[in-house]
Amino acid sequence: MNLKEYLAARIERVERALERWVPPETMAPETIHRAMRYSLFAGGKRIRPVLCIGAAEALGRTPEGIEDAACTLEMIHTYSLIHDDLPALDNDELRRGRPTNHVVFGEAMAILAGDSLLTLAFEVLGKLPHASDGTKAKLVIELATASGTAGGMIGGQVHDMEGEGRPPTAELLEAIHRAKTGALLRGSVRMGAIYAGASPEQLQALSDFGTHVGLAFQIVDDILDVEESSETLGKTAGKDQAQRKITFPAVYGLTRSKIMAESERLAALEALTPFGPGADPLRALADYVVKRKA
Amino acid sequence: MNLKEYLAARIERVERALERWVPPETMAPETIHRAMRYSLFAGGKRIRPVLCIGAAEALGRTPEGIEDAACTLEMIHTYSLIHDDLPALDNDELRRGRPTNHVVFGEAMAILAGDSLLTLAFEVLGKLPHASDGTKAKLVIELATASGTAGGMIGGQVHDMEGEGRPPTAELLEAIHRAKTGALLRGSVRMGAIYAGASPEQLQALSDFGTHVGLAFQIVDDILDVEESSETLGKTAGKDQAQRKITFPAVYGLTRSKIMAESERLAALEALTPFGPGADPLRALADYVVKRKA
Repeated sequence: MNLKEYLAARIERVERALERWVPPETMAPETIHRAMRYSLFAGGKRIRPVLCIGAAEALGRTPEGIEDAACTLEMIHTYSLIHDDLPALDNDELRRGRPTNHVVFGEAMAILAGDSLLTLAFEVLGKLPHASDGTKAKLVIELATASGTAGGMIGGQVHDMEGEGRPPTAELLEAIHRAKTGALLRGSVRMGAIYAGASPEQLQALSDFGTHVGLAFQIVDDILDVEESSETLGKTAGKDQAQRKITFPAVYGLTRSKIMAESERLAALEALTPFGPGADPLRALADYVVKRKA
Repeated sequence: MNLKEYLAARIERVERALERWVPPETMAPETIHRAMRYSLFAGGKRIRPVLCIGAAEALGRTPEGIEDAACTLEMIHTYSLIHDDLPALDNDELRRGRPTNHVVFGEAMAILAGDSLLTLAFEVLGKLPHASDGTKAKLVIELATASGTAGGMIGGQVHDMEGEGRPPTAELLEAIHRAKTGALLRGSVRMGAIYAGASPEQLQALSDFGTHVGLAFQIVDDILDVEESSETLGKTAGKDQAQRKITFPAVYGLTRSKIMAESERLAALEALTPFGPGADPLRALADYVVKRKA
């Protein structure tokens, strides 16, 4: 399969869905809608929505409206970036090669833009035009728990903040990364499976895939922060070490981290054994996650 | 009816629901759960959840689990207070007579505690134990739109921020207050009606009630900021004038503002005409909103 063409077609559907659901910049109060769109349409790779669509396709179908559900993952991801970049958190001024939200719109508006994207994600799930009410409720629970405090994204963020400067142990590293980026990536895969009506066994297999892809993604992210320039990454490189973050290279060194990423990729592929060629996009995405340079 | 007893009984149910749904302080990561609970259990009046329960009771029934739906309104209200109090927004150090969340836990944790309460509200709606999936989806939409940017709470907050220092006009005042506090108070009443299975006519009448109570609430809030001390209010008094906010007293003066609050109270009672004695709690709440001193 041609991953480039596959990604382009899926991303196009996600972009159109986001365009439909996010209020236009001309709607009052204009500033907040401009701020939401500034970060949402900043050239993100849309990995989470594409994983969501890919999981549904692995089950042999492309359910109508899946891009509406998928785009809520990008709203959550974008809100978390806006809030993470704030001076009180990571204090970052560069994201995807552009000034961060609070640099352009001020801190107050950036906080509210994040809140708005978080709120809008759930509004969209409640309004999904082609899903049953039962599916909507399941997706709301899935998105909320993947982004929440108990094993979800915010929980990982807190572990990460509290870990700064502490001795880097394998246990703390796992607690941080299973939750911080892993939970939402796993949730992306699960939401696609739920939308497509997966059986419990299918949902479990795809969850396992999501867990391993999530870990691979985070290991590679940690490696890129060490090896690549700010220009390539579109965000400040080398920040993990400067902030004494607990990362895979800090705990295991670069060489072993690379082996671990490859091992997670193989485990992700292993989890897809029950699925036929419909899962080839997910397989290609697992490769892409490990081989990306930004 | 005895409003004090009525309120005490309803508030007790809401407190128990919050206690059930919010992770305990002993659950990791502990800090974020402590921060969420610090502001959530800070002696709030629980007006929004009680309006929600009161609206269901006005329809002649006390649906099982209504307090689970109602308590999500307090999560949203509390998240908005935590974020509003941040240095980048209202920069307030006192709330309900105690140091604000960011003063105790730091700005980063306060931002994340707000995000967590917002996320948890939707998780609870997705998991409501006694509601149909159709009701859950409707409640998710209602809560999200009442708190969102287009005519909702965040939209009002942005209008409010952008209005600071501008000439206080009646139009701007209305745009701010219909949304900033009005939308969530109206949404509280509507969520109770939806949970109890209101007919379209009943939902409309209760929405009208909510709109008028919401306006009355905000007018009185503006008046109290001028007339009461910080000690009585449990938050910094006189801030509206200091920040050149657009308030009812600023636009209409104190005397006319008081007449307007009374007029909104009467309009709220008028909207309840179709309902029998089951709506007496809502009637008493409308009185309470106008006569409160904090």
